[in-house]
Amino acid sequence: MSSSFGTDLRITIFGQSHSTAIGVIIEGIAAGEKIDMEQLQEFMNRRAPGKNFYSTTRVETDTPEFLSGLKNNYTCGTPIAVLIHNKNIRSSDYNIFAEVPRPAHVDFTMQMKFGGYQDFAGGGHFSGRLTAPLCVAGGICMQILVRHKISIFSRIASIGGIEDKKPLTVSTAQKKFPVIDDEIGKQMLDCIVAARNDGDSVGGIIECNVFGLQAGLGDPIFDVMENRIAKIIFGIPAVKGIEFGDGFKLAKMRGSQANDQFTVQNKKIVTKTNHCGGILGGITNGMPLNFKVAIKPTPSIAREQESVNLKTLKPTKINIYGRHDPCIVPRAVPCVEAATAVAIYDAFLSAKKYFNLE
Amino acid sequence: MSSSFGTDLRITIFGQSHSTAIGVIIEGIAAGEKIDMEQLQEFMNRRAPGKNFYSTTRVETDTPEFLSGLKNNYTCGTPIAVLIHNKNIRSSDYNIFAEVPRPAHVDFTMQMKFGGYQDFAGGGHFSGRLTAPLCVAGGICMQILVRHKISIFSRIASIGGIEDKKPLTVSTAQKKFPVIDDEIGKQMLDCIVAARNDGDSVGGIIECNVFGLQAGLGDPIFDVMENRIAKIIFGIPAVKGIEFGDGFKLAKMRGSQANDQFTVQNKKIVTKTNHCGGILGGITNGMPLNFKVAIKPTPSIAREQESVNLKTLKPTKINIYGRHDPCIVPRAVPCVEAATAVAIYDAFLSAKKYFNLE
Amino acid sequence: MSSSFGTDLRITIFGQSHSTAIGVIIEGIAAGEKIDMEQLQEFMNRRAPGKNFYSTTRVETDTPEFLSGLKNNYTCGTPIAVLIHNKNIRSSDYNIFAEVPRPAHVDFTMQMKFGGYQDFAGGGHFSGRLTAPLCVAGGICMQILVRHKISIFSRIASIGGIEDKKPLTVSTAQKKFPVIDDEIGKQMLDCIVAARNDGDSVGGIIECNVFGLQAGLGDPIFDVMENRIAKIIFGIPAVKGIEFGDGFKLAKMRGSQANDQFTVQNKKIVTKTNHCGGILGGITNGMPLNFKVAIKPTPSIAREQESVNLKTLKPTKINIYGRHDPCIVPRAVPCVEAATAVAIYDAFLSAKKYFNLE
Amino acid sequence: MSSSFGTDLRITIFGQSHSTAIGVIIEGIAAGEKIDMEQLQEFMNRRAPGKNFYSTTRVETDTPEFLSGLKNNYTCGTPIAVLIHNKNIRSSDYNIFAEVPRPAHVDFTMQMKFGGYQDFAGGGHFSGRLTAPLCVAGGICMQILVRHKISIFSRIASIGGIEDKKPLTVSTAQKKFPVIDDEIGKQMLDCIVAARNDGDSVGGIIECNVFGLQAGLGDPIFDVMENRIAKIIFGIPAVKGIEFGDGFKLAKMRGSQANDQFTVQNKKIVTKTNHCGGILGGITNGMPLNFKVAIKPTPSIAREQESVNLKTLKPTKINIYGRHDPCIVPRAVPCVEAATAVAIYDAFLSAKKYFNLE
Repeated sequence: MSSSFGTDLRITIFGQSHSTAIGVIIEGIAAGEKIDMEQLQEFMNRRAPGKNFYSTTRVETDTPEFLSGLKNNYTCGTPIAVLIHNKNIRSSDYNIFAEVPRPAHVDFTMQMKFGGYQDFAGGGHFSGRLTAPLCVAGGICMQILVRHKISIFSRIASIGGIEDKKPLTVSTAQKKFPVIDDEIGKQMLDCIVAARNDGDSVGGIIECNVFGLQAGLGDPIFDVMENRIAKIIFGIPAVKGIEFGDGFKLAKMRGSQANDQFTVQNKKIVTKTNHCGGILGGITNGMPLNFKVAIKPTPSIAREQESVNLKTLKPTKINIYGRHDPCIVPRAVPCVEAATAVAIYDAFLSAKKYFNLE
Repeated sequence: MSSSFGTDLRITIFGQSHSTAIGVIIEGIAAGEKIDMEQLQEFMNRRAPGKNFYSTTRVETDTPEFLSGLKNNYTCGTPIAVLIHNKNIRSSDYNIFAEVPRPAHVDFTMQMKFGGYQDFAGGGHFSGRLTAPLCVAGGICMQILVRHKISIFSRIASIGGIEDKKPLTVSTAQKKFPVIDDEIGKQMLDCIVAARNDGDSVGGIIECNVFGLQAGLGDPIFDVMENRIAKIIFGIPAVKGIEFGDGFKLAKMRGSQANDQFTVQNKKIVTKTNHCGGILGGITNGMPLNFKVAIKPTPSIAREQESVNLKTLKPTKINIYGRHDPCIVPRAVPCVEAATAVAIYDAFLSAKKYFNLE
Repeated sequence: MSSSFGTDLRITIFGQSHSTAIGVIIEGIAAGEKIDMEQLQEFMNRRAPGKNFYSTTRVETDTPEFLSGLKNNYTCGTPIAVLIHNKNIRSSDYNIFAEVPRPAHVDFTMQMKFGGYQDFAGGGHFSGRLTAPLCVAGGICMQILVRHKISIFSRIASIGGIEDKKPLTVSTAQKKFPVIDDEIGKQMLDCIVAARNDGDSVGGIIECNVFGLQAGLGDPIFDVMENRIAKIIFGIPAVKGIEFGDGFKLAKMRGSQANDQFTVQNKKIVTKTNHCGGILGGITNGMPLNFKVAIKPTPSIAREQESVNLKTLKPTKINIYGRHDPCIVPRAVPCVEAATAVAIYDAFLSAKKYFNLE
Repeated sequence: MSSSFGTDLRITIFGQSHSTAIGVIIEGIAAGEKIDMEQLQEFMNRRAPGKNFYSTTRVETDTPEFLSGLKNNYTCGTPIAVLIHNKNIRSSDYNIFAEVPRPAHVDFTMQMKFGGYQDFAGGGHFSGRLTAPLCVAGGICMQILVRHKISIFSRIASIGGIEDKKPLTVSTAQKKFPVIDDEIGKQMLDCIVAARNDGDSVGGIIECNVFGLQAGLGDPIFDVMENRIAKIIFGIPAVKGIEFGDGFKLAKMRGSQANDQFTVQNKKIVTKTNHCGGILGGITNGMPLNFKVAIKPTPSIAREQESVNLKTLKPTKINIYGRHDPCIVPRAVPCVEAATAVAIYDAFLSAKKYFNLE
């Protein structure tokens, strides 16, 4: 079903932005995996709103409540159910959008799909808020992957065209603003402030590296690593593109430039370059898995926009008030890591059926 | 399983580049759909090799043989099995690559995954040849979609950086070289010839538009239209990126530029622009669905490259002979259409459970 | 995943007997279906424990709490999440069974499967308590099916060999003891009392009829109606057999006796008999769908039994105290209806992709 | 999809009784498994028609042709496609049944489901002939399971009420008539001859034992061993019931009789009896897995029967000629073994994700 991801590991996300609670069911994790609750909460905090000037002022503590699947913080082998209660809800903010859809929002398509029965408040089931349970699942998978020496690092690669070009080789988890080059980070923040001051918003790109992957993960034809990752990454609202390794730049290159040639390093076969992003024929080759994700600007802006009244079919103007991020890219960084962790652990479990993994 | 795609419509692709046959099982098509065999063959011919200077000289007629699922060329409601025999096979070409993997090819990762039991000849199950059965399935879906007034047009958007910027509003199916701007097409051909003459290859970008889609297709969170399409498109070998609407350009834009504002045209709600590629919140909004796909240069080039002998772990040089496309982008155009048709018809059938579709 | 059932409708059950809560995620119900909460609670009450002398004294009100998926008691088209809190828990009852497994219980196999990490209290995720969320899902499906004129009736067909032979043509939902022939019902109750007085338990058979099914539901080969129903019915603990129509009796019959011959009644094609249970070739034929389910005696009995200490591998005696049903058959009747409703509605939705259903 | 079974191992069966070919796609078998073709053919021969007086005179050699997935008779890790050509076809035999459906056959329900587009010849995709590709898949799985010391034995347990009561502890694969007690076997044959001489047919029961299973296979709630086996067994046409261990007899028993008490034998925990059929809480307990399957009498009989003309809606008489088994139970024995092998190997692969299996 559409709110589920994964085959050997499966997560099912439920809830609406303004429902009593949101949450996730996680199936397929073996019995005996320890979950470090403090570490999980720290991970959740990276996504949580209300902490920075560039994010919405809606305050949610986002504390996961485990209903089942654990015994003394160890997995017991059956479905893990996790709730996050919605507390800071102001649904009346959204009543008008049922009739006059906001540009670039899901208001219009929800109406077309659900014919009036949709829960449009706060974006309903389509809301960015639903990335909170995704982060619960991903945070748990990251803890397990680290036990297999696999780590996932992400960063903002660009905001409004301002690029962080330093290599992504360390975690940005402890940083207030998740970039490698902090000088560039300041420019990005200025760019976000400028957009906010103009009643506007701005988009960006997130880059992700997975280190420590054994060669041989991924499955032909439709479960190659690119598919597996793209399928979950597009589950994050506002994502409009993904590229692996040099991606769209490869389209301009010749084979002699793009081919990663093999060599030996520490008795291990490696490639001299990594244009392919660690994936050959859809299968991991043991090099860092690398990809980039395009995030569109937040659709909610403080400027008057043109819309149409769905009942009268007459053009009208719309103004959006309420609490919104002028740039969601910083908060999307842990979401990209979480989504990646789920996809990687699913591929890892799948491979366990066929060969021995450390 | 990994060689299958789809939930309400499902295709399962089997075969290796040099096995007796390749083929596809198609499940989920209702009884009573007519298949026009001539039209299907014409579609297959667009992908078939051996017809142009820019493609491999391996000649395959690619004639689909229907084993089951039809009665007098009408679907009978049970699985459709289609074979394509492999005829023009020269497996001895490939023996060396079992020991010395070709850069940017699947040789190395197949060895890591299958531990010596892989069928590496011609790329095995990972070969571009496996897009032939994908085209059978897609060609059938396109015939059915047209009955619902949905049409899929694709073109080469760029080769080696040379861009076709004319709007993609008509089919390129009848063209020898699938571009809109034929002048630009000539420059692209020159670029391919130059690469071939240098013993090299070149990549490109394919653009695809789907016209006639009803608003409301796609499902949250992980079956949004972007997921559905990305998951199958990455099943085409050499694809390394995908973007919807303005995609990666959106990452540089502000909300006020990116938001598609609503208006009324012929008593229908439309958007004034289509930066979002016809997808809002993952759901079709009734505008043309638009996306672009990055294709890497063919990895097989006639130049000496560096590799490693897998048995001795010693660096070595490798030269690749045999039949290869200097640019696979033109032949990938019908594959993109086919993949899109399968994804769209799957989404269409899924929506039929919930509302009435024309 | 194993705790999920269904393809077009999917339910995912989570929780353990003694976890904070148990529940179910229901996906695939279209937007706009009304849920009558009172009627649902009445249905839940039929399964709830603690109300009759023949059931456990554990008292649970089993009130479903809807977390998401509804707006004003109408489905909004996205996942429905329902919780039932566990209140009356006495986990210390179960500590001993981790070391000395109870005969015919899941203690031993849980230990073999989960290696010590299992949550064995109360049977954990394997407990009969997990049929409560199944009843939530089934109760909702029954409400929707009735709108399509499909109704599901069940009854106790036998307890300890005492058979209710009157035809099952009406609902037993309003009865304290769900049989058609109340005189036989009294004998069954005596049989249960006798077992309880002996510190023993007793098994039985449940029969189920589905009326109002259109001909044509079910799909070859592995989603025929028998598969669809068997797969979910065996999800009810203690079920050890299922037969459709005359089932095992057919194995003794000749074709001339077993074949249901066709005739016309009220301008509709019907069969003169219904030995096949309304299913031909796995597809509904428009006659009542009929099947019977064998329920083993409750494994928890008050008599001393032989077991083995898992640590010392020494034979030992075991005595089971605590709260247990001497016969679970009466409480399993609504569970069979619920499971059937889920399977039927899933088949119904699947058929909607292919033809028009009322 | 409905013609597929399995999650970690998946088989997809295609073809109609009178299509060019029938076959199966097998996915999920690791690279490096050897397939002994002679042994597979021997297994296929047990199911093949035309060899005994009690079976149809349609002669098919049923030689599997492997199209893909193998290299030198070792699996190469990608989908295995197998064809069996249909040679001895007489479709004209079946034309009449499109208009006047045969009692107890799929003619009527196919018409209701597919609205005239069905391929009814020989039962189409619903035909018992489709058990041939099931036997290919099962025969391969059996070869692999034996390498893990798991063996599957079946026998006719009864025909027309005549029971073979000797314990099922050895294979019946080499026997002309698959029973343990050959004296009883002769009586069964007499019973079949008598039915045939009366222009009639007769049903029976098949019993199956799986030896060598490790404790811990199977998954709660809906992938317990009973579900997994029932789901595939009901894919064999004419199966109308299944029971595990003492099955329906358990419904008459008390807990003190039904509970299998634990003891120690050769330092291993076993049960003194096996009423539960080797399955506790849906999970294997290390004892032989045991179940019985009810097979209805062949619907095709040589006697005049009552039917209805679907066009005129008028009652009419029908006589069936052609080639039919008076009793399909003997030929269904290897089909039950094959189906079981597929289900068991799927459960085995699933367990490999979680613990180490020999």
